[in-house]
Amino acid sequence: MNRLLDGPVDGMEKDGAVNHTVEVATSFHDKNTFRPTNSLVQPLLTDLYQITMAYAYWKAGKKDSFAVFDLFFRKNPFDGEYTIFAGLEEVLRYIYCFRFSEDDMGYIRSIMPAGTEEEFFQYLADMTTRDISVYAVPEGSIVFPREPLIRVEGPLPVAQMLETTLLTLVNFPSLVATNAARIRHAAGPSKELFEFGLRRAQGPDGGLSASKYVYIGGFDGTSNTLAGKLFGIPVRGTHAHSFVAAFTDLTSLKNKMMKHRKTGVEVDFVALSQKYRAEMAPLFQVIDNEIDGSGANNGELAAFTQYAMAFPNGFLALVDTFDTLRSGLLNFCAVAKALADLDYKAVGIRIDSGDLAYLSKQARQFFKTVANRFGLPWLANAKIVASNDLKEETIYALNEQNHQIDSFGVGTHLVTCQKQPALGCVYKLVEVDGHPRIKLSQDVAKLTMPGRKTIYRLSGGSGNEALIDLIQRVSEPPPEPGKRILCRHPFEESKRAYVLPTTVEALHVLYYQNGHVFHDRLPSMEDVRANVQRNLVNLRNDHMRRLNPTPYKVAVSPDLYDYVHDLWLANAPIGELS
Amino acid sequence: MNRLLDGPVDGMEKDGAVNHTVEVATSFHDKNTFRPTNSLVQPLLTDLYQITMAYAYWKAGKKDSFAVFDLFFRKNPFDGEYTIFAGLEEVLRYIYCFRFSEDDMGYIRSIMPAGTEEEFFQYLADMTTRDISVYAVPEGSIVFPREPLIRVEGPLPVAQMLETTLLTLVNFPSLVATNAARIRHAAGPSKELFEFGLRRAQGPDGGLSASKYVYIGGFDGTSNTLAGKLFGIPVRGTHAHSFVAAFTDLTSLKNKMMKHRKTGVEVDFVALSQKYRAEMAPLFQVIDNEIDGSGANNGELAAFTQYAMAFPNGFLALVDTFDTLRSGLLNFCAVAKALADLDYKAVGIRIDSGDLAYLSKQARQFFKTVANRFGLPWLANAKIVASNDLKEETIYALNEQNHQIDSFGVGTHLVTCQKQPALGCVYKLVEVDGHPRIKLSQDVAKLTMPGRKTIYRLSGGSGNEALIDLIQRVSEPPPEPGKRILCRHPFEESKRAYVLPTTVEALHVLYYQNGHVFHDRLPSMEDVRANVQRNLVNLRNDHMRRLNPTPYKVAVSPDLYDYVHDLWLANAPIGELS
Repeated sequence: MNRLLDGPVDGMEKDGAVNHTVEVATSFHDKNTFRPTNSLVQPLLTDLYQITMAYAYWKAGKKDSFAVFDLFFRKNPFDGEYTIFAGLEEVLRYIYCFRFSEDDMGYIRSIMPAGTEEEFFQYLADMTTRDISVYAVPEGSIVFPREPLIRVEGPLPVAQMLETTLLTLVNFPSLVATNAARIRHAAGPSKELFEFGLRRAQGPDGGLSASKYVYIGGFDGTSNTLAGKLFGIPVRGTHAHSFVAAFTDLTSLKNKMMKHRKTGVEVDFVALSQKYRAEMAPLFQVIDNEIDGSGANNGELAAFTQYAMAFPNGFLALVDTFDTLRSGLLNFCAVAKALADLDYKAVGIRIDSGDLAYLSKQARQFFKTVANRFGLPWLANAKIVASNDLKEETIYALNEQNHQIDSFGVGTHLVTCQKQPALGCVYKLVEVDGHPRIKLSQDVAKLTMPGRKTIYRLSGGSGNEALIDLIQRVSEPPPEPGKRILCRHPFEESKRAYVLPTTVEALHVLYYQNGHVFHDRLPSMEDVRANVQRNLVNLRNDHMRRLNPTPYKVAVSPDLYDYVHDLWLANAPIGELS
Repeated sequence: MNRLLDGPVDGMEKDGAVNHTVEVATSFHDKNTFRPTNSLVQPLLTDLYQITMAYAYWKAGKKDSFAVFDLFFRKNPFDGEYTIFAGLEEVLRYIYCFRFSEDDMGYIRSIMPAGTEEEFFQYLADMTTRDISVYAVPEGSIVFPREPLIRVEGPLPVAQMLETTLLTLVNFPSLVATNAARIRHAAGPSKELFEFGLRRAQGPDGGLSASKYVYIGGFDGTSNTLAGKLFGIPVRGTHAHSFVAAFTDLTSLKNKMMKHRKTGVEVDFVALSQKYRAEMAPLFQVIDNEIDGSGANNGELAAFTQYAMAFPNGFLALVDTFDTLRSGLLNFCAVAKALADLDYKAVGIRIDSGDLAYLSKQARQFFKTVANRFGLPWLANAKIVASNDLKEETIYALNEQNHQIDSFGVGTHLVTCQKQPALGCVYKLVEVDGHPRIKLSQDVAKLTMPGRKTIYRLSGGSGNEALIDLIQRVSEPPPEPGKRILCRHPFEESKRAYVLPTTVEALHVLYYQNGHVFHDRLPSMEDVRANVQRNLVNLRNDHMRRLNPTPYKVAVSPDLYDYVHDLWLANAPIGELS
């Protein structure tokens, strides 16, 4: 499907969301395959007040009131000016499967006060999302404060009931995807980025969610094997310090012989590695006169030989268990040369401590020297992986020091979003039974915009550069490419601008209605990932830079501006000074 | 069971852990009931390098090497000096059920390099934790840096394989339980503390784990209904702003009649509430001359009446949707008085924005005035609940302003541990085939202590005040109450102290061996929660204070000191200056 509207506005419903009448929604799909990834995502994963409110709505005769809720955030995370929207597919899986089980109902009965009417329990047991419609921006969109990312419409108690779970399923995925995108921006497109954070994540699926959504945000893969299995994300991993520590010496090794890749001739691989280490040791002096290889650890060499024999095509050694410069690098190169004799190419090293910029430059210089002296030209470009408490700022700092790192393993800061561990998405009632609803606040940033709204992204130039996002009421005609449009600041009366877009993209898509998920509108995870990078390319660089980024403009139509401001005035209490 | 050793040391194994030969381990238990709470906790929820290392160990002939790993952290979180250990029961559930499925094996085959030996896959498919032993400090213990919280012993590749998942299952639970304990310390024992953080949590079980472990850490309950169902934790919740926003006026209400609790006589509850509001309005002037009740919102009053009619015994109103002082408080009191006429007692209010200290004091003053004038003495003590971005520091600040809050709802900062969103537990190899292993580091804080070790907590006085924790080699005889013991600083040679304990508590308990979980040693969640509070009472207050807390001492025995330092010297490379 093509959501870019560069001609007459076809296939667009009057609510401003793209619809495709020619594409009939898949009329039925198997609940067994379109379930939440995590079985804990179920109707009871919510705040109790959703259930107590449901009872009060029901008792007040409001079970069939028609409500509209907006899900949005008020501030971009990480002191930045953009956010990646993520989590939508899991939201749809949850909504699609929404149904209290008998077991749930037993629990709910046990916590509701005595005297709760029996009919209500029946109502709750029968509650489905059949009458709910879900409009949303596509997963992987770049989004901004106050934009309704998801618009949920339907019976008030049902639409209300979805609040907490939707927020849980959007807040963290969007936050961690944004974090990943920012680190990708810091590292540049040519570096490999891998997520190594499972052990420090906030719970098992804090880790699993992180693995999935940082991949969407621009990482290349993860160490998390379950994420690999469930989502098809590339997985990476070699060995830990404990693997090195598990080998004490060279003599006690049980397994020393290894065959040549082509000829099959067997050699004592351990002895060969030892021989090359002795020959290479003097080369260390090109780096530092004090380093001559005499400090190289035998347990480490033993571990490297055993790892290389198990993974002759994937030999990537962790070199900082004892001392990167005095031991690890030399042991790695010795084993790499022995592997080369058997017609294998080593992959590289990982450094997990110390001054990563300095060590990577030293390592690169040593690789080049060894490559030269021992006739192993590819070794000059052996991969250097760095890990150890990396974050966005560290990568910028490494860049300034001209590091020689090819691949970053990022853990704690990435998966827990240490700089800002929560995104503040909220879910607000904006209309009920046709009446616009508004949440007043002394703080203008906390005001909500009432009514059913939709969003357009107006682009200029060749249509690639996003100029402004325009929020309108769904009843308004969509903006048209090539026609000048007046865009207003949502709060400041005097801020207005005419925009002449070359393309207009309707951001809202209808994903769920009448119990059907529009599967044909749901991109694959790989497509979402590609969209993120494509969308980021279309965002001006000054919105993305680390320091003092320019806010991207989100405007409202004149009609929406008047609608909102009239309501504010009508509802805000008038103070009195005496 | 009683782990306090106040007499001869009975029932203690030579490895320093408490054992109970009289209590035979439950010989078998049903995997269906002792499974991880989250079905995503499974052997593949790990870093890929655990599997690649398993292959390299297996190929190196080390599959039956006997390894000992310690799980510990190096620094208490939140700039504090204590940590609550949590997550153990889920660790045991995971270990007990550990087994790769056929499906897992298919995936593993697909990611391992071509040429991986077939026998290895068979080995992995057959891998169990039957030969693993797990010693640990009891869940809910107060623990300190460098103490082995869990000691895992068994075949090297198996013990290694558990690393990532154990860390995931301990790091966040311990972090968030500690956060909760700190907030309990800030709020004091008499305040109610509820966790409201699900919507901002890092994934669905970031939220679920938080709900469980903050309860263990000292909270009174949660808004998370699934946590209530799964763990039996008390749940709380009333209504959101959107509930208030869903009511536009008083006239359109469908349901206005309500019966007296005893007599059954029906009255127009809405009209009654309106009447009392008019009568009470002038009272607002006792708070502030500018406030006379004329700004009270009718939609809000409508919402309150409907909520009160649904929950006449549980009427707790969110009063800040429009204006706490000008609208919410008056509407609440009016409905509370109407409820009182029908023989019900209102519960109180929740304030979710603004200056919580000021508003709570104003609310209390108004409650007292209304209580007085309208003959509702209990209203003077109506509950005041506060929420809105609360954290430890905010609660200390509120205390200084003599707030009148009875109950705190804590969300984002609590569940995401915003101040420090990750605990840095590590899992280090400390012994293999009887050889002590050591991870050297230029940074003394990062050195590991080799060998099998156990921990004793030495207490003084009446036995209630923890004096010092002593780490020993398991081969040493345990310290005895009433006998002077030399305790040494683990790194600083000159720091030594004699300690005369009145009680000695062995902290390590054997929880898993030969495939059996010692269920009789596993306390219930309620017991764990009670233990946390009891243990905290035994910790001197200067270790717990917010500013500049005193570090609690963790010492080593002279034997362990020598063992460690001899190994360090033997293994550390000698530098050369020329």
